[in-house]
Amino acid sequence: MTHVFKDRPKLVARIRRIKGQVEAVERVLDGDGDRCLEVLQLVASVRGAINGLMAELVEGHVTHHLVDADDEAARRQGGDELIQVLRTYMK
Amino acid sequence: MTHVFKDRPKLVARIRRIKGQVEAVERVLDGDGDRCLEVLQLVASVRGAINGLMAELVEGHVTHHLVDADDEAARRQGGDELIQVLRTYMK
Amino acid sequence: MTHVFKDRPKLVARIRRIKGQVEAVERVLDGDGDRCLEVLQLVASVRGAINGLMAELVEGHVTHHLVDADDEAARRQGGDELIQVLRTYMK
Amino acid sequence: MTHVFKDRPKLVARIRRIKGQVEAVERVLDGDGDRCLEVLQLVASVRGAINGLMAELVEGHVTHHLVDADDEAARRQGGDELIQVLRTYMK
Repeated sequence: MTHVFKDRPKLVARIRRIKGQVEAVERVLDGDGDRCLEVLQLVASVRGAINGLMAELVEGHVTHHLVDADDEAARRQGGDELIQVLRTYMK
Repeated sequence: MTHVFKDRPKLVARIRRIKGQVEAVERVLDGDGDRCLEVLQLVASVRGAINGLMAELVEGHVTHHLVDADDEAARRQGGDELIQVLRTYMK
Repeated sequence: MTHVFKDRPKLVARIRRIKGQVEAVERVLDGDGDRCLEVLQLVASVRGAINGLMAELVEGHVTHHLVDADDEAARRQGGDELIQVLRTYMK
Repeated sequence: MTHVFKDRPKLVARIRRIKGQVEAVERVLDGDGDRCLEVLQLVASVRGAINGLMAELVEGHVTHHLVDADDEAARRQGGDELIQVLRTYMK
């Protein structure tokens, strides 16, 4: 039931890359000149990276908190949590 | 394991409403005049309705094919199917 | 300023294909058996097709109601309409 | 034509808040315990904030590089850039 631990180094590396992308947006917004197209492209990339991370986290949740859950109570909780998250995310 | 059956009348009513919305788009596109804003708003509504239907279907899948799956093999299959669908949908 | 007219046959064909996809979802939901994965995949395809149509309509709007607008008033209106639609769509 | 400058302090504050949210995800992923639901909710929030920022940036682009463009060449370029960005973003 420790699925965050399992892939932790990979997930941490992934969120750090996203932080780097966010800092690039900050630098361009904070700098001189009108680099509007560049900012739009950078923000679109951040969104793509966030979507990819979210998909991976949901996949981990399905595997570890539903398919491989320790018992029925844990599985039911894992299902409730997933539904709660996806309800917001998908609408 | 027949979760589509369970909510069937509600889901069928929902997809029929979406078909009605799609037909409204078709009528406006096929008609006279430049009703561009109206078409954009209608298509945005269709997308909202599709997202809502997708969220409900995924919720049913989680409940019936994962939490309440008959056995471990069915649960593993339900999990694989969900991951396959969400991988495309969320990226 | 009649951009809907310009691409009309192509756009009408596109929305009719989407209607066909929606009818396929209806048939599967309304039929026998638990074809959950199939429904999820079909609804995901409808969403992809709707997103593609929306992108094409927005592209037409930008070209005809903004870049090639008849005068400044029309352009301002085209811009307000686009912002209104995207504000809902993108959030 | 310097629309990034115009709202710069507000946009910079916004991207810094997003950086703070990303750092919160990093801390939870890098920490002890299985805080899976919390991470999912945090990442969903980041995505919402990114979508909101993207919508605001697109709105600024429409206003300053299309509606209020200096001349026809600038407007045509502003339209091409917007279409290029939205084509990726909306599909």
